[in-house]
Amino acid sequence: MEKDRLLLSRLKKYGESKAYPFHMPGHKRMAGDKALNGFPNPFAVDITEIEGFDNLHHPEGILKESMEWAASVYGADRTYYLVNGSSCGILSAICAATEHGGTILMSRNCHKSAYHGVILNRLKCAYVYPQIIEKMGIQGGILASDVEKALKEQPDVQAVLIVSPTYDGIVSDIRNIADVVHGHGIPLIVDEAHGAHFPFDDRMDEALSCGADLVIQSLHKTLPSLTQTAVLHGRRGYVDFEKLERYLQMFQTSSPSYVLMASIEQCIYEMAVHGREKMAEFSERIGEVRRELAEMKHLRLLEPGEKWLRLKEQSEGWLRLDEPGEKRLCLDEVSGVYDYDRSKIVVSCRNCLRVNEDGRRGRMDGNQLSDWLRTEYDLEMEMCGADYIVAITTYLDSQEGLGRLVEALKEIDGRLEACEVNQHPLNNWNLPDIRLKMADAMERRSEPLLLSDCAGKISAEFVYLYPPGIPIVAPGELVTERIVERVLQYKGMGLPVQGMADLNAERLRVLGEAADAEEG
Amino acid sequence: MEKDRLLLSRLKKYGESKAYPFHMPGHKRMAGDKALNGFPNPFAVDITEIEGFDNLHHPEGILKESMEWAASVYGADRTYYLVNGSSCGILSAICAATEHGGTILMSRNCHKSAYHGVILNRLKCAYVYPQIIEKMGIQGGILASDVEKALKEQPDVQAVLIVSPTYDGIVSDIRNIADVVHGHGIPLIVDEAHGAHFPFDDRMDEALSCGADLVIQSLHKTLPSLTQTAVLHGRRGYVDFEKLERYLQMFQTSSPSYVLMASIEQCIYEMAVHGREKMAEFSERIGEVRRELAEMKHLRLLEPGEKWLRLKEQSEGWLRLDEPGEKRLCLDEVSGVYDYDRSKIVVSCRNCLRVNEDGRRGRMDGNQLSDWLRTEYDLEMEMCGADYIVAITTYLDSQEGLGRLVEALKEIDGRLEACEVNQHPLNNWNLPDIRLKMADAMERRSEPLLLSDCAGKISAEFVYLYPPGIPIVAPGELVTERIVERVLQYKGMGLPVQGMADLNAERLRVLGEAADAEEG
Repeated sequence: MEKDRLLLSRLKKYGESKAYPFHMPGHKRMAGDKALNGFPNPFAVDITEIEGFDNLHHPEGILKESMEWAASVYGADRTYYLVNGSSCGILSAICAATEHGGTILMSRNCHKSAYHGVILNRLKCAYVYPQIIEKMGIQGGILASDVEKALKEQPDVQAVLIVSPTYDGIVSDIRNIADVVHGHGIPLIVDEAHGAHFPFDDRMDEALSCGADLVIQSLHKTLPSLTQTAVLHGRRGYVDFEKLERYLQMFQTSSPSYVLMASIEQCIYEMAVHGREKMAEFSERIGEVRRELAEMKHLRLLEPGEKWLRLKEQSEGWLRLDEPGEKRLCLDEVSGVYDYDRSKIVVSCRNCLRVNEDGRRGRMDGNQLSDWLRTEYDLEMEMCGADYIVAITTYLDSQEGLGRLVEALKEIDGRLEACEVNQHPLNNWNLPDIRLKMADAMERRSEPLLLSDCAGKISAEFVYLYPPGIPIVAPGELVTERIVERVLQYKGMGLPVQGMADLNAERLRVLGEAADAEEG
Repeated sequence: MEKDRLLLSRLKKYGESKAYPFHMPGHKRMAGDKALNGFPNPFAVDITEIEGFDNLHHPEGILKESMEWAASVYGADRTYYLVNGSSCGILSAICAATEHGGTILMSRNCHKSAYHGVILNRLKCAYVYPQIIEKMGIQGGILASDVEKALKEQPDVQAVLIVSPTYDGIVSDIRNIADVVHGHGIPLIVDEAHGAHFPFDDRMDEALSCGADLVIQSLHKTLPSLTQTAVLHGRRGYVDFEKLERYLQMFQTSSPSYVLMASIEQCIYEMAVHGREKMAEFSERIGEVRRELAEMKHLRLLEPGEKWLRLKEQSEGWLRLDEPGEKRLCLDEVSGVYDYDRSKIVVSCRNCLRVNEDGRRGRMDGNQLSDWLRTEYDLEMEMCGADYIVAITTYLDSQEGLGRLVEALKEIDGRLEACEVNQHPLNNWNLPDIRLKMADAMERRSEPLLLSDCAGKISAEFVYLYPPGIPIVAPGELVTERIVERVLQYKGMGLPVQGMADLNAERLRVLGEAADAEEG
């Protein structure tokens, strides 16, 4: 390998380039502050568990003291530092809150680590689905009434897990969901990976203060901490902390990095001391950005309207259309949105046409928008969906960076034309027909079949569009004619169908003996 | 919290102190080289999976290319970068190589992550025990003949896992063990966490080249890489790489740190280009250190004698004493040592007396020796056992550092007097009486009982002396009178009895219904 092809040299080059990061990690390389928080060369402070530096897995000294202090900052009974990302916190929370082979109720839009937890603890799954914001083609929130209904239907559920906020910034009504869940005597786990900044923003309700029992937050996503750092907060009552700690020891290295742990503590300290003030000031700045972006003619900023936010004032009485077989959860006015994280800049190009050099017109898509922002403006987005992009902004973004984003989007907007609205594929969900536990389905003998031959078979794999990453089929679920049709249709539209071992998404692994494989 | 009490400020202070690290990580903060390998501020190069930087969990670009290049350096069919330490590699290897609920044969001196893998995959365990080097009171190697015997007794074993080298540097005869294991048609996993430097040292045989199928190496322990970095090497034939990758995705964060990945690649690159030369030169230097330390009168350097290393020339015909009930595995001449890693400086104070200020004499122990080295000489050891210390040295150690270690040990040696040899508690093992799977035992209702009341009960916890960390009892095993006696005796000797939730090691959690709990 050539030295200039090494990862480190490419990273340095990217760091020194003019590219502006509207992506994680949230420290934004301190947005041009060359001091970079005074953090030293990592090799200079990278040690092991020597005398005086305690042990993350049996803390009795400074790490214990530090995590107790952090818990007091968050108002938690326990706060755990995580060096293997939110992923290990989600795995541990699931394994601690359920029995091996038990049942969990989770929102279908959970991160893949939640599915991993289900597999590792060999759980049965019941699902609640997020609502849909049809105009933008993105997921809405989870309704407390849906959780209530599911718990009544499935009395053996041992824990509930939902994700809030979503990748796109949608916050669900945790307070009412927690009440419902506790009414059934079980714990609520909230994957708040994207909401680590909420506790320091007076306008946002964080899950812990709303009654969630276990809350996982990625520090690196929206706060100034290194990638792979996260925290898990616990509330006494529904959770066995000893069991939780046993799993945290399993899912994290026995040689945790002091560089990562120092970054976690440093980040929480910074937020405890200056967070509220920084977040308030940032709120002003992002408000201005949003006001400017609201003026775009064709591109459309995801902006919480009054209709969306009704939940915050009045959290009951939502309409639901329940149709047998295929359920249409898409209700424009019933978004399930309790609140919205305005630091997420979600811009849709759904009803936009671009004019090519030869004068011909083409439909604009998320990829194209992201490409233009990168190649023409040196702006790197966090994510692009089929017809939208997501920029993550944090209080560490510079005015210059935010200004560049506004200018670029407005300029691109000026080049576009309107077109009729796409029919978006997200507006119908299938309720899954679960035949086998996920873990069992993944372990049985399976064979890759052409998608068109899979109807009537049981899947051994996941299939989803990414984003949003919500499984269309999960292992152990029946592949219906309808699902095959839909996946082929998505592929035809050039949408990112993923999850299968076959990277071309042509063949799906299904179980051989579908007919006789019944609920295990 | 006060700013100067933060972890980061303490780490900086330690980094700037005169303390010399004879502990992990192996980069030794580049032993005074202020350039610290030119590694940048971590915040400057800490990014996420953006365009052009690939995805560790579905590598298709530079990470794929990088890991393929690494595999070619190591002569592996696959090499995986690990950002959650060797721990996640061991978990993944175990889960990939066995079926859920299956059986594994492992050496009883495995790292706790191996036990975690057994618990997570709900395996039954069979054990082989390391030999013992009685004069030093440390573990010897694993005999291929023991593995053969165990596999004949337990035909349902699906994989074998052994640790080599040990924490103390003892290398087992992997070539013959691999032959035996492959003779039974199953894979051999080697936890080579402490041997990441072997592939670059012409005098050492690394496990992969000896025929192991899955090999896990901690880069941070003995090479210049950041803590928490490791690699997993795979050899085609006995292992399903697709299954392995599925588990690697589960046990590692979905947001792996590019700082850690860059450190891994940088380390392998450095070793591929300069490793052999550096290791050869280091070998000279460490040889000189060892020659000097061999002159000590009372302290004793662990030094492989001819007797020890016989295995390397002739790997059969070892005597074994098999007594029913309690097995005496301790045979001085039969150490099972195939080779020894001379970079580990293991110094025993087993038969040493110290003279106190008032003229009274006291037995010297590992703690005391480690304390003197720290407080009087600013030398920080990796570990201290009951009557020995371990210093980890790497090619990055400075001459000044090594010189200070030699001087300090010689000076302390001059202050000591001889005494008769301690009876060391390690010279007898119990073969465990396994009543329940580890995972089942940990999940059943258990109660903490005074140790003296535990005979006849089934343990719900581990009990071990740390070091060496070999379980005296594991969850699911019967606690015998003999075990209770021994543990109380160890406690009486002031040895570090650990593993129980009760940090004072007074109460052990045992299952309530021991009598009727049979093999699950």
